[in-house]
Amino acid sequence: MTHIFGNTASLAKTQRSLGPEVFEYPLLPAQLHGCIQSATPDIQYPLEVDYDYAAVRQATFRRGSNWSNWEELLPPRHPKVNMPVGNTPLVDVSALAPAHAARRVLVKDESRNPTWSHKDRLNTFTVSAALYENAQTIIVASSGNHGVSAAAMASRAGLSCIVLTMPEVSEAFRDMILGYGAYPIYLSADDRWPAMRQLQELPGFYPVSNLTKTHTGHPWGPEGYKTIAYEILAELDGEIPAAVVVPTGYGEMLYGIYKGFTEVQRLGHINRIPQLVSVEPAARGPLYHALKAGRAAVTVAAGPTVQSGTATTVNGYRSVVAIRESRGIAMVVTDEAARAAHRAMAQQGLWQEISSSAALAALNMVERFENDGPIVLMGCSTGLKEPTKPAQAHAIAPDIASLRAYLKTEFGFEF
Amino acid sequence: MTHIFGNTASLAKTQRSLGPEVFEYPLLPAQLHGCIQSATPDIQYPLEVDYDYAAVRQATFRRGSNWSNWEELLPPRHPKVNMPVGNTPLVDVSALAPAHAARRVLVKDESRNPTWSHKDRLNTFTVSAALYENAQTIIVASSGNHGVSAAAMASRAGLSCIVLTMPEVSEAFRDMILGYGAYPIYLSADDRWPAMRQLQELPGFYPVSNLTKTHTGHPWGPEGYKTIAYEILAELDGEIPAAVVVPTGYGEMLYGIYKGFTEVQRLGHINRIPQLVSVEPAARGPLYHALKAGRAAVTVAAGPTVQSGTATTVNGYRSVVAIRESRGIAMVVTDEAARAAHRAMAQQGLWQEISSSAALAALNMVERFENDGPIVLMGCSTGLKEPTKPAQAHAIAPDIASLRAYLKTEFGFEF
Repeated sequence: MTHIFGNTASLAKTQRSLGPEVFEYPLLPAQLHGCIQSATPDIQYPLEVDYDYAAVRQATFRRGSNWSNWEELLPPRHPKVNMPVGNTPLVDVSALAPAHAARRVLVKDESRNPTWSHKDRLNTFTVSAALYENAQTIIVASSGNHGVSAAAMASRAGLSCIVLTMPEVSEAFRDMILGYGAYPIYLSADDRWPAMRQLQELPGFYPVSNLTKTHTGHPWGPEGYKTIAYEILAELDGEIPAAVVVPTGYGEMLYGIYKGFTEVQRLGHINRIPQLVSVEPAARGPLYHALKAGRAAVTVAAGPTVQSGTATTVNGYRSVVAIRESRGIAMVVTDEAARAAHRAMAQQGLWQEISSSAALAALNMVERFENDGPIVLMGCSTGLKEPTKPAQAHAIAPDIASLRAYLKTEFGFEF
Repeated sequence: MTHIFGNTASLAKTQRSLGPEVFEYPLLPAQLHGCIQSATPDIQYPLEVDYDYAAVRQATFRRGSNWSNWEELLPPRHPKVNMPVGNTPLVDVSALAPAHAARRVLVKDESRNPTWSHKDRLNTFTVSAALYENAQTIIVASSGNHGVSAAAMASRAGLSCIVLTMPEVSEAFRDMILGYGAYPIYLSADDRWPAMRQLQELPGFYPVSNLTKTHTGHPWGPEGYKTIAYEILAELDGEIPAAVVVPTGYGEMLYGIYKGFTEVQRLGHINRIPQLVSVEPAARGPLYHALKAGRAAVTVAAGPTVQSGTATTVNGYRSVVAIRESRGIAMVVTDEAARAAHRAMAQQGLWQEISSSAALAALNMVERFENDGPIVLMGCSTGLKEPTKPAQAHAIAPDIASLRAYLKTEFGFEF
């Protein structure tokens, strides 16, 4: 079905399951329920995109290379998804890492993206897939970076966007969602999934967030995060980091970065990959607990935490693979330590989300890494998005008639 | 006095007045009261930095060139001011400019800077000057982008920073100022200047915002904005825009962009410069009125406007020069038109300050430009900074004893 992609250089060929047994699917339609052939009630394995690596000709990773050099290794990007994304700088914060005094410590500042977070990399490809599948309306369940990024990318591509969020969503996020011309629906946590399930069955409606019990997400999404690995290698001009420290929710970014490095190794440009370090709130930390228990995914209680960007109660299997295969390290960070790191980062001119700054706290708890080289901390989003006050909107009932009436009355959006 | 600058490639040699009669000063100390030799009670002329242009050897402006190629043409950058700044992308919004359907219209997205506005370019050099002059504490009068940028740059360089702001400052800006570890002082509009004058006399205290009746500002500041012109030429790979449309307060950015293009022309890399278009709120617009009256600077009434980023009551003389010498156009935009442009921009995925979006509204009111070529609109800052609620702090009395007591009690900052 390559013809629908125009004259892209992409060598993407199939969707492939990440589970112990490999199943393959065509590149589209995106398998939004994970690998259905291997799914059980307890575990759904995510899918990733496979490429014709033997045919790669253009890809380079030295200083000055950029997204235009990496098209072969990415899913096809729809021409309407033409917002410049990525190309974010590394900011030196070595002064903040006394436990690793001999190394350079660098923050990859993802707040320099179009909607000021890493999520724009993911939505570049989820929205591309939506356009190739002739979607009309993007649906995203998020009270954070993912929702506003999807809203912006969808709007620019001429798609409608519904963001299923919570009455407690911060004013900052609500204002952004409305700003981009998307439609927020305020639902209680219990009501979001019933609403998502009903909406995604409507013709032309296309979810870009997760639909399964354990996280599988959109198979094209994590591919966008591979560019982080490529950009790091380009900026370091081939020097390989000892580790990349990644604030981790469902692990799409963690896996994407891991995969990017493995691809560059496979293509012969580097001879090892960095250790991946995941960072979760101590009050939750499903990945930490899954790895400890030797399981593919676990569900944890929704303990209170200020690290809202990574406050998930279930891990994605992708993150298990990334930590295991990179001989990585799973860390958890208390809110107190995250807040202290947040203050320290700000005094280096980096005002980040608290959950992002937790990467620094985690780094200072790691005793050693296997290799020499700099450490890269992922700085995911701006502190401007940290909640001050909730938007205090009312919750909507999740049945389709109520949703329809609300969207029509509030925004004039009819379907 | 070149020795204090280390092994910089900078060819900066003097400060030079912009007034009709040229006066020169050493490169430092920065003349913070403008050109004192030509000042009258009515007009103070700003200073700019002059260079040894005949000695320029490295500067290139083709695709892929960046700040490392332009050190000769910038003031010396202090090694402690090492935050990556600039390198912001051009985002296509041609669909939004029906009045110029044959042209590409591009937004230079300055929200991709470290504190999410263009001001980081200015403060890269004001804070450098402060360090070379052995300052200990930066003082900045601002309730907006300039204040938070100065706070971040100062903090990273190990300097203290006091931000003279207003009780009505938005929560977003207050949180940023505090986040970076700077000290906000909430003063009424009438009290800010007395407070500034008293503080700047203290040893080690260094103002990076204006001290004169008509705006002169810090002579090194606008030099940072020249990089916008250089970056535009690099990204367009030598193509010359027909115009650059610039939301204008005191005109430091307007002048910096104008100067950058003239330098590249002087060095023989381009054969003309773009027309500069200034954009001010219709309720104020001192530059518009100064040009109409043929005057160097005028003061206008503080008419109400939502375009807070450009809501000045006096123009800088720099902006008069930039418009006059580029055969440019001075535009004013109503709040209604600015809001409509703000919504239109957001639906292209660019959620900006309202005052930035006004550039689009202005463009659609211009009938023609002198030359072919794309149009660049300056997108100055993120919509995340638009005020939702005021921080509602109380105002402080502007005498030095009260200021001292407040800073000590509130922040433990003693001087």
